[in-house]
Amino acid sequence: MNAEQAIAEAAAKYSNWGRWGEDDVLGTVNFIDEATRAAAARLVRRGASFSLSQRFDTDGPQKGWRRRTNPVHTMTDTGLDAVHGNQGFPHGFGGADDVIAMPLQCSTQWDGLGHIFDHGRAWNGRPADRVVTSEGDRVTGIEHLAAPVAGRGVLLDVAAVYGELPDGFAITEEHLTATAEAHGVEVRRGDLVCVRTGRLARAKRDGWGDYAGGPSPGLSFWTAGWLHRTELAAIATDTWGFEVRPNEFDNAFQPLHQVVIPHLGLLVGEMWDLDALAADCAADGVYEFFLTAAPLPVTGAVGSPVNPLAIK
Amino acid sequence: MNAEQAIAEAAAKYSNWGRWGEDDVLGTVNFIDEATRAAAARLVRRGASFSLSQRFDTDGPQKGWRRRTNPVHTMTDTGLDAVHGNQGFPHGFGGADDVIAMPLQCSTQWDGLGHIFDHGRAWNGRPADRVVTSEGDRVTGIEHLAAPVAGRGVLLDVAAVYGELPDGFAITEEHLTATAEAHGVEVRRGDLVCVRTGRLARAKRDGWGDYAGGPSPGLSFWTAGWLHRTELAAIATDTWGFEVRPNEFDNAFQPLHQVVIPHLGLLVGEMWDLDALAADCAADGVYEFFLTAAPLPVTGAVGSPVNPLAIK
Amino acid sequence: MNAEQAIAEAAAKYSNWGRWGEDDVLGTVNFIDEATRAAAARLVRRGASFSLSQRFDTDGPQKGWRRRTNPVHTMTDTGLDAVHGNQGFPHGFGGADDVIAMPLQCSTQWDGLGHIFDHGRAWNGRPADRVVTSEGDRVTGIEHLAAPVAGRGVLLDVAAVYGELPDGFAITEEHLTATAEAHGVEVRRGDLVCVRTGRLARAKRDGWGDYAGGPSPGLSFWTAGWLHRTELAAIATDTWGFEVRPNEFDNAFQPLHQVVIPHLGLLVGEMWDLDALAADCAADGVYEFFLTAAPLPVTGAVGSPVNPLAIK
Amino acid sequence: MNAEQAIAEAAAKYSNWGRWGEDDVLGTVNFIDEATRAAAARLVRRGASFSLSQRFDTDGPQKGWRRRTNPVHTMTDTGLDAVHGNQGFPHGFGGADDVIAMPLQCSTQWDGLGHIFDHGRAWNGRPADRVVTSEGDRVTGIEHLAAPVAGRGVLLDVAAVYGELPDGFAITEEHLTATAEAHGVEVRRGDLVCVRTGRLARAKRDGWGDYAGGPSPGLSFWTAGWLHRTELAAIATDTWGFEVRPNEFDNAFQPLHQVVIPHLGLLVGEMWDLDALAADCAADGVYEFFLTAAPLPVTGAVGSPVNPLAIK
Repeated sequence: MNAEQAIAEAAAKYSNWGRWGEDDVLGTVNFIDEATRAAAARLVRRGASFSLSQRFDTDGPQKGWRRRTNPVHTMTDTGLDAVHGNQGFPHGFGGADDVIAMPLQCSTQWDGLGHIFDHGRAWNGRPADRVVTSEGDRVTGIEHLAAPVAGRGVLLDVAAVYGELPDGFAITEEHLTATAEAHGVEVRRGDLVCVRTGRLARAKRDGWGDYAGGPSPGLSFWTAGWLHRTELAAIATDTWGFEVRPNEFDNAFQPLHQVVIPHLGLLVGEMWDLDALAADCAADGVYEFFLTAAPLPVTGAVGSPVNPLAIK
Repeated sequence: MNAEQAIAEAAAKYSNWGRWGEDDVLGTVNFIDEATRAAAARLVRRGASFSLSQRFDTDGPQKGWRRRTNPVHTMTDTGLDAVHGNQGFPHGFGGADDVIAMPLQCSTQWDGLGHIFDHGRAWNGRPADRVVTSEGDRVTGIEHLAAPVAGRGVLLDVAAVYGELPDGFAITEEHLTATAEAHGVEVRRGDLVCVRTGRLARAKRDGWGDYAGGPSPGLSFWTAGWLHRTELAAIATDTWGFEVRPNEFDNAFQPLHQVVIPHLGLLVGEMWDLDALAADCAADGVYEFFLTAAPLPVTGAVGSPVNPLAIK
Repeated sequence: MNAEQAIAEAAAKYSNWGRWGEDDVLGTVNFIDEATRAAAARLVRRGASFSLSQRFDTDGPQKGWRRRTNPVHTMTDTGLDAVHGNQGFPHGFGGADDVIAMPLQCSTQWDGLGHIFDHGRAWNGRPADRVVTSEGDRVTGIEHLAAPVAGRGVLLDVAAVYGELPDGFAITEEHLTATAEAHGVEVRRGDLVCVRTGRLARAKRDGWGDYAGGPSPGLSFWTAGWLHRTELAAIATDTWGFEVRPNEFDNAFQPLHQVVIPHLGLLVGEMWDLDALAADCAADGVYEFFLTAAPLPVTGAVGSPVNPLAIK
Repeated sequence: MNAEQAIAEAAAKYSNWGRWGEDDVLGTVNFIDEATRAAAARLVRRGASFSLSQRFDTDGPQKGWRRRTNPVHTMTDTGLDAVHGNQGFPHGFGGADDVIAMPLQCSTQWDGLGHIFDHGRAWNGRPADRVVTSEGDRVTGIEHLAAPVAGRGVLLDVAAVYGELPDGFAITEEHLTATAEAHGVEVRRGDLVCVRTGRLARAKRDGWGDYAGGPSPGLSFWTAGWLHRTELAAIATDTWGFEVRPNEFDNAFQPLHQVVIPHLGLLVGEMWDLDALAADCAADGVYEFFLTAAPLPVTGAVGSPVNPLAIK
């Protein structure tokens, strides 16, 4: 089967179009309800907090693909200026201030629902050209996700169970369920599932190399059914692009994205840093936690930097 | 007393320098401990989630003060391009991507510990020119706060108790404690306290005007002792600059900042949107909640955009 | 006649589509030939040089229309850092470096041929959506004008002849020819014509106000024929938008642009500072000069900042 | 001799401090006078115009050194939007608009006088920390060079005379004078001298590689005397850093910069594209021309992108 056929079949089988009404702008985040979120908060026992974000740093993974650069952080005022006395403030007041320029998907991020299209169709069947223009995503902008992304987090540390995954390793439903079983955790409706492949740990050790866009372990295209059936609210990985690369079809580009974002309405996280959390989960054997991962509500954005917090 | 004297006295009385060791980079966030955070999570009852962030939008409050602009969000790929077929992807794949350029303190934000200095001294007594250079904050950059900012949130809706506060209204310790009493809530060590003045609601109604830097209600300089004594982890308001403006001294500029950031090491939030949360608190009479407000960990930043979540 | 009819008639009468072949990317700049340019260089007598550019400055005219901001110039290294010794260079070497973020049309500029469309048609009749995508202008990008924009400059100081022009003053062909006659200069094929209205001098005196997009003197819509017949290579003014505002039709927006850019292929300059040059021309009575105004060759740009030099 | 001694000796011998008064902000550009410029204009014979600028392009030489990126050019309106009809303009009007973010020295450029310091001293002996703060160069900002940089250009095509120069090839005074002799041209006071090494032609052929900051042919440190004695107004090369790399001393960084910018006040151009001009000069045997190279007058900038025009 070629990619085009496989995508079409998966799209037909797993579509959530219309599931939450014609006007829906949340997709699978609808699976999180208040009861689920309240139950997730009760998972907090010790009160330990883990940031799942990489640093937003000039020395980041980006190499220029589709004009994606690493963040450029510059100062407009500094302590040097304050000490030098050229700021013009009274009574010994001094200040520092700063500016950033960056692609919204340069580092730890959420893909918005307007990020990927299938044959010109965006989430819920809308025409892509009506949704995302040069003004941004006028329908499903990331600002709609400002409040709800908080709930039960589950870590599936596939690298801990199967060893460090090589590039091109396609994580299947079997790997995922076996990992959950090994961890003694089950994946439930409304979960924010974090899948650790070890790819980021490798980049930390060996340098960025082709982390952004190059070969990588990641989810198999054939997990689309599992992603649909489990009714996850979101999935996030420690890789650039969440799905395995090279992709599992000839001449393909991110076919799983093409199914899960426009058809499932799935919230996808990329470049998360799951290493510290994974070490803690290994130590205490608890792979579920409260997770908040509120995107920055940039009006009309098709993605957002995020600093997710896992609280155990 | 003039501003310089008042600042010097307050600095001497309320200094936390050395309190958490010579190498401290967290300031009052040290007041949050795991037990406190775990207890805060138990405040979640219904599982309702409130974003306390304004939208990051071109139509924002900034007017150019010290080169602060509103965010500029531009698209590098759109649905129009995808439909037009000029993206070069296979099998009907289309994508949208985007970029942002903004001051780190253009909208809802945390001030980092390197944001304000007193006579050339930064938090913990360090020389400002050693801490914040053109490379950014090399000691107390906001990335150090990536994980810990999650705990008990308390809303003090001063505007609900005293009516919409006019510009220049200095909120005193008496106002704060009376508000807490009216709400039936007490402020405790390690709390993340949100003070609502109604200033943002007014800007929403009447237009931004001089919201950024102009006259505003806000905390009185003389709350420095209360801020110190209560051992808050952080304080945030719905105003541009957290303290009352015009300031309470002649020829002064943000004197309370000059005390609380470099001397107390206090985490200060500005331009938060507390309106939806306030309405809910008024409805159910519960003014405490679990609050996560993780900054974006931009290496060396002296401030950060943030989308805080209050979960009740 | 309404704007739509007037534009259609002018477009039909004055079109240059096909005049320089199907592949043309230069438009009226084709009117400059080497002989013309060489003759223009012979206009240099004293060797005096005048910059016709405003400063690119945070305190500029932009107020946010269509996301146009003033330039944001930030330093990545400074003399303060060099003196402080934190740059890491050997043998006493120190450096300063800087970054800019700006709309390409934020200040003194050329409009590229891909800047304006008429009913979906770009210069030479090309479909606008084939020419300018999110990747930029893939056909007539400003980089194609890197070399040729140097030739005979002529100043028509309408404000000197008619007095400072009020907002809404429509400069007609009669005003232009009478001004040329008063100056003792004639407009020729291939000229780069600079029209001074006094609008910028007023902004310098009274503040920017609505300089960007507000009421202004400027060329009448009915000069389209003159612009076509004279075979100018380019026209530039000291106003935001080159044509009179409010426009001369109800519910219209820049109708002269809609004729001259896509149909004539005319190079249009805006926000030029002609004041120093005008004073010199008034003093010596010579209103022609050598003019170089090479755009910055940003690949695919639909406009460019420019620092034009008039040499007399 | 080590770098520090060599720099100190050269600085002492070749200093121009005070030569044009205490308030000077132009440096060697003072060598261009009106008579010189008028004479240069008379060099124009055919009227041919050559752009000496590279394209400002995402696919540029920068690799991130000291936060220098390639330009990021994004669209805020496109032809796709115009055709789609979502721009909100009347009568069939459509537009495209764009934005750029870039280091001011990312491509073809001038170094400003505030770009390099020697032991904390800037041009004319001023303290570097008084000259360039976080607000930019408050004394010798590039805006002061808005008007005067137009005069006699001379091409010294060293690569044509000596063959393509290898990396590390130090161009000496002897090479320069022999090249001038071979070309039948002499270097005079006030000239804008362009030195072609062939390094850019190599990058065009073989890819950028380490063009930015890596090994390269370039001027020998020992040309400082020649640069001083000839009273050039400016010198520009087709390399990243104008001087030979690796530098001619151990543990050195751009020692010739450290002499010529702060001590001579020399205007230095880098990354110029001299290839088309060189081909023309080889064809007609004429190596002198009129050159205009007006920087973009960004207030307080320590460098500027530039599109120089050579007119023969």
